[in-house]
Amino acid sequence: MTPNSPMPLVGIVMGSRSDWETMQHAAQKLDALGVPYEVKVVSAHRTPDVLFAYADEAGPRGLRAIIAGAGGAAHLPGMLAAKTAVPVLGVPVQSKALNGMDSLLSIVQMPAGVPVATFAIGNAGAANAALFAAAVLAPEQPAIAGALAAFRARQTADVMAADDPRQ
Amino acid sequence: MTPNSPMPLVGIVMGSRSDWETMQHAAQKLDALGVPYEVKVVSAHRTPDVLFAYADEAGPRGLRAIIAGAGGAAHLPGMLAAKTAVPVLGVPVQSKALNGMDSLLSIVQMPAGVPVATFAIGNAGAANAALFAAAVLAPEQPAIAGALAAFRARQTADVMAADDPRQ
Amino acid sequence: MTPNSPMPLVGIVMGSRSDWETMQHAAQKLDALGVPYEVKVVSAHRTPDVLFAYADEAGPRGLRAIIAGAGGAAHLPGMLAAKTAVPVLGVPVQSKALNGMDSLLSIVQMPAGVPVATFAIGNAGAANAALFAAAVLAPEQPAIAGALAAFRARQTADVMAADDPRQ
Amino acid sequence: MTPNSPMPLVGIVMGSRSDWETMQHAAQKLDALGVPYEVKVVSAHRTPDVLFAYADEAGPRGLRAIIAGAGGAAHLPGMLAAKTAVPVLGVPVQSKALNGMDSLLSIVQMPAGVPVATFAIGNAGAANAALFAAAVLAPEQPAIAGALAAFRARQTADVMAADDPRQ
Amino acid sequence: MTPNSPMPLVGIVMGSRSDWETMQHAAQKLDALGVPYEVKVVSAHRTPDVLFAYADEAGPRGLRAIIAGAGGAAHLPGMLAAKTAVPVLGVPVQSKALNGMDSLLSIVQMPAGVPVATFAIGNAGAANAALFAAAVLAPEQPAIAGALAAFRARQTADVMAADDPRQ
Amino acid sequence: MTPNSPMPLVGIVMGSRSDWETMQHAAQKLDALGVPYEVKVVSAHRTPDVLFAYADEAGPRGLRAIIAGAGGAAHLPGMLAAKTAVPVLGVPVQSKALNGMDSLLSIVQMPAGVPVATFAIGNAGAANAALFAAAVLAPEQPAIAGALAAFRARQTADVMAADDPRQ
Amino acid sequence: MTPNSPMPLVGIVMGSRSDWETMQHAAQKLDALGVPYEVKVVSAHRTPDVLFAYADEAGPRGLRAIIAGAGGAAHLPGMLAAKTAVPVLGVPVQSKALNGMDSLLSIVQMPAGVPVATFAIGNAGAANAALFAAAVLAPEQPAIAGALAAFRARQTADVMAADDPRQ
Amino acid sequence: MTPNSPMPLVGIVMGSRSDWETMQHAAQKLDALGVPYEVKVVSAHRTPDVLFAYADEAGPRGLRAIIAGAGGAAHLPGMLAAKTAVPVLGVPVQSKALNGMDSLLSIVQMPAGVPVATFAIGNAGAANAALFAAAVLAPEQPAIAGALAAFRARQTADVMAADDPRQ
Repeated sequence: MTPNSPMPLVGIVMGSRSDWETMQHAAQKLDALGVPYEVKVVSAHRTPDVLFAYADEAGPRGLRAIIAGAGGAAHLPGMLAAKTAVPVLGVPVQSKALNGMDSLLSIVQMPAGVPVATFAIGNAGAANAALFAAAVLAPEQPAIAGALAAFRARQTADVMAADDPRQ
Repeated sequence: MTPNSPMPLVGIVMGSRSDWETMQHAAQKLDALGVPYEVKVVSAHRTPDVLFAYADEAGPRGLRAIIAGAGGAAHLPGMLAAKTAVPVLGVPVQSKALNGMDSLLSIVQMPAGVPVATFAIGNAGAANAALFAAAVLAPEQPAIAGALAAFRARQTADVMAADDPRQ
Repeated sequence: MTPNSPMPLVGIVMGSRSDWETMQHAAQKLDALGVPYEVKVVSAHRTPDVLFAYADEAGPRGLRAIIAGAGGAAHLPGMLAAKTAVPVLGVPVQSKALNGMDSLLSIVQMPAGVPVATFAIGNAGAANAALFAAAVLAPEQPAIAGALAAFRARQTADVMAADDPRQ
Repeated sequence: MTPNSPMPLVGIVMGSRSDWETMQHAAQKLDALGVPYEVKVVSAHRTPDVLFAYADEAGPRGLRAIIAGAGGAAHLPGMLAAKTAVPVLGVPVQSKALNGMDSLLSIVQMPAGVPVATFAIGNAGAANAALFAAAVLAPEQPAIAGALAAFRARQTADVMAADDPRQ
Repeated sequence: MTPNSPMPLVGIVMGSRSDWETMQHAAQKLDALGVPYEVKVVSAHRTPDVLFAYADEAGPRGLRAIIAGAGGAAHLPGMLAAKTAVPVLGVPVQSKALNGMDSLLSIVQMPAGVPVATFAIGNAGAANAALFAAAVLAPEQPAIAGALAAFRARQTADVMAADDPRQ
Repeated sequence: MTPNSPMPLVGIVMGSRSDWETMQHAAQKLDALGVPYEVKVVSAHRTPDVLFAYADEAGPRGLRAIIAGAGGAAHLPGMLAAKTAVPVLGVPVQSKALNGMDSLLSIVQMPAGVPVATFAIGNAGAANAALFAAAVLAPEQPAIAGALAAFRARQTADVMAADDPRQ
Repeated sequence: MTPNSPMPLVGIVMGSRSDWETMQHAAQKLDALGVPYEVKVVSAHRTPDVLFAYADEAGPRGLRAIIAGAGGAAHLPGMLAAKTAVPVLGVPVQSKALNGMDSLLSIVQMPAGVPVATFAIGNAGAANAALFAAAVLAPEQPAIAGALAAFRARQTADVMAADDPRQ
Repeated sequence: MTPNSPMPLVGIVMGSRSDWETMQHAAQKLDALGVPYEVKVVSAHRTPDVLFAYADEAGPRGLRAIIAGAGGAAHLPGMLAAKTAVPVLGVPVQSKALNGMDSLLSIVQMPAGVPVATFAIGNAGAANAALFAAAVLAPEQPAIAGALAAFRARQTADVMAADDPRQ
């Protein structure tokens, strides 16, 4: 966050700097929709205490959703969800050997009691987590609701305006 | 809904009556947390027009989340998400041949632009979708926030009170 | 369609412009067999109303088969099949992370009651969907039957004429 | 076929007697829709010459579709398709060890040039292959078209009439 | 531990009481080899603070290995490993829908920097984690080394003494 | 072998007594075809020295094929092949958690240089390994060639004699 | 075969010219071992009659093994095995979308009664099928036996002579 | 080892020279932590006797852990574990067709009685096996314990010092 930026409503965290290539798609969507957010590398395995502190403070600091991306044995989203009541949106980052199937199962197969809302593997999942966060905020944030509706309308119009793939 | 029941905030829909065995775990959690909800069979493939009507009316009717369970080529959550801005929570029902892997991939691998928040295959996923819906509502519904916090605290206490599995 | 082109008998639809790289193999086969067709981007998730309208009009407009290609959580073929009695032929487009396994399962694992005829992942599936559409039309369209028979004979002759792979 | 039965339009074949448990769902649907059919065990591996003879005669005998079910290394549908221009509809029978994933891939992943229209693993796939065969015949068989439309309408009505899964 | 039992060298922890059915096979092997151990339910998701405390104290309390079993999105072994230098041995518990493939990938696919030694899915993995823990202790614990050698010799002799499976 | 039995030409080995349930299907087929064989439990992991001795002696003792069944991390077939020039036929035994997919990959994915001929998972694979062993012996053993030809003819006739699955 | 070449003992067949990239590894190994062979493209789906004729003549023409490579829905090895008593060795060619998993399952999962000896996906499988064919011939062809033994010894010596991977 | 190097405590072995690309990550970590080690190509399939000799001598020579990397039908780690009481750490090397899933299952799915501690597919697994070996040695080797603690602390500090992925 730069100075004077509004209080972030969404936290984008990721297990490693290399996940940014994927997670920037979440940031771009939040930017486009006018949702204030913050971005931080938090590694479940290399900085577990930071993870716990981040989760503990998320609610008090006013975060309304945490978008967490990780790959392989992806424990970041689930451990955040274990420590905070703020909704956690998990993004499986595409892994090298198993193409993100390991990331997906590590995130989505949470036991009953501690939910993580999971999205598609890779860039689409990151973008959709951001759209979903906006949808969660929309009922009480008319500007976000409007931006989201406009995005959806434009997306539909774009397909309809160019529906001959041969051109 | 029975008469005089409060306006539902969450819709639980499923592709077939047989999915109720799974989806009742969502209903039980919403009951326990005091979240008003409705339950309905809506089949993407057998009643597509009902699906569209349900999605169109979800926002105006005041639904704040739709929990949609389906198995196999599970199109219900994604098609609801295509038609409404209300957050859709997808629950992959365990299928006969492929154990729900088909359900999971059909729900979670949505393209960028139309998100479905996906949860674990089967009962755990249904329960967690309900908990997640409550978490989405919590910031503006203190009673739900309290019930959710109490549930989480009790869940933790239960494990701690009986942590010797040999007894 | 260009003006004066014959009424299309087959519709080729796809979820995104990028699917054309795959679906053009269907178009090429229909061209080669003299089957009139049309091509259109119809997104289940971004233009669901267009999808429904397309399906509703497919029969009245005289389409005898719809070839629908989509990737990831591929809902286009199944939702078309939910809305029309015209036979729907599904083509799983190869997806980035999961190589089309998600596309395949999302298309082929339809519940009893609403069939989608599914073909191989990628280019081969697109080509075969076109050949299959021609075979469906052949009994009442002698020219297509003849073209199909000629294609099959030539395909066999080509293998036999060049059956030493070292040359 | 019993004496005086109408000429079959659809052939239901399967690789082994044990596949009948699955394939009877195709027969039941054809019965319900009034589509005349025949049933026969034809094993690609144990009776390959019967398979070739069946395929050679299918067109001349007036069959308009062949529904072929097989499990494991399921070669029956693809080899029929290699020998006849009659549309072949493949049904992957659920196998013991791999739950039909082997059957599915053996049937659906046909190379370009020889299509097999593939349906879901198991009973749903068998039922849907029959519905699809009826849809192929419908344009020139008004009775079948009517029966199919009635089936679809009833199926929709059934869901709508009993859409509360708790009752 | 009962009073006067020796200081445990190995901790067996598991994410849920139901995992004991699997993890008792670790306990049985440690009993047979005379390795002192303790048993405790520690849930990564329901009791994350207990997990961190357990990991923090494991080294100071003298544990030389932690055997951690969990199923589904199994985060317990990896999060223990994130918090302690004591070797963590992970046991993927067989899950309901995906047969433990989710558990396995969630445990074994750890990123570089924080290792979890992973064993087979289910009972065999639990038993082998115990044998491996004993092998780690063997160089400095002659009694354990002897018990382990005797176990291995007996296991070999048992196969050789009864090598005709028809009897 | 009982006294005075002919010199075995085929060895059936398996990693554990419990594999006999599968491997007896190999024995039954060899019995039916009059191929002399022996049966023995040889565990790659629990009796590695027996494995090496068995492989070393297989050629000198006159074995012409070794049928080796194992499950899970199935190393028996590959290690036999590493130690003998006698053809090794591998049978993947269906495992508990992963249904034999682990067994199959552990056996079939041998590196270039040391082949193992692999058959289907479970009973079918065991039976087929025996049939294949007989086919290898047939050119120089007219009695086996005759028995094999008779088996194949009978198998074909059986299907043709009972090709209506409804009876 | 060129004129005056010895009668082939092994046939290498493949479903498409593009499979030669893989199957040449079988040819190279047979060349190196002095095993006479022939090479031919035979497509199960595009030239089924050629396949049947090839299988019918394989025994009478003196072939002692057929190495058959195919990809995707790979029916060539199994259909050859259905038509000849000559041992069939199947090589799963690596496919584009599914990396050869479809090829492998289509070849290895043969039903009881008709065996195909299956080898690894891709080049290693092709090479190993050739080595296996040589091992089948070795007992009655001392030159091949010698060449095979020399190959194995050299392969072992090569590893031992260069066992420091850092050099 | 160069002359005067300390007695190795860890052996790094691999099935083929090409595995060095992966296994060097184990060597680098051991170098960084000051753990003396040796490196050798030992092929389970091409040099089985070397494998047995290596395993037999591992304990007497003072090795405290063996890190074994292999790909495909990866038998090296399991066969070492069958022959020595020294802890074996298995590293699944990423294979060409199946991306290391075959390697992983071949290594991790060991039967009860003979454990192999398995790590992630590829470079991360190699690095982690080395870190784990160091952790096993740490209790009696203060220098290694110190180096390991320093590595972990630095790794944590590195993430914390650069936790904005956009910079």
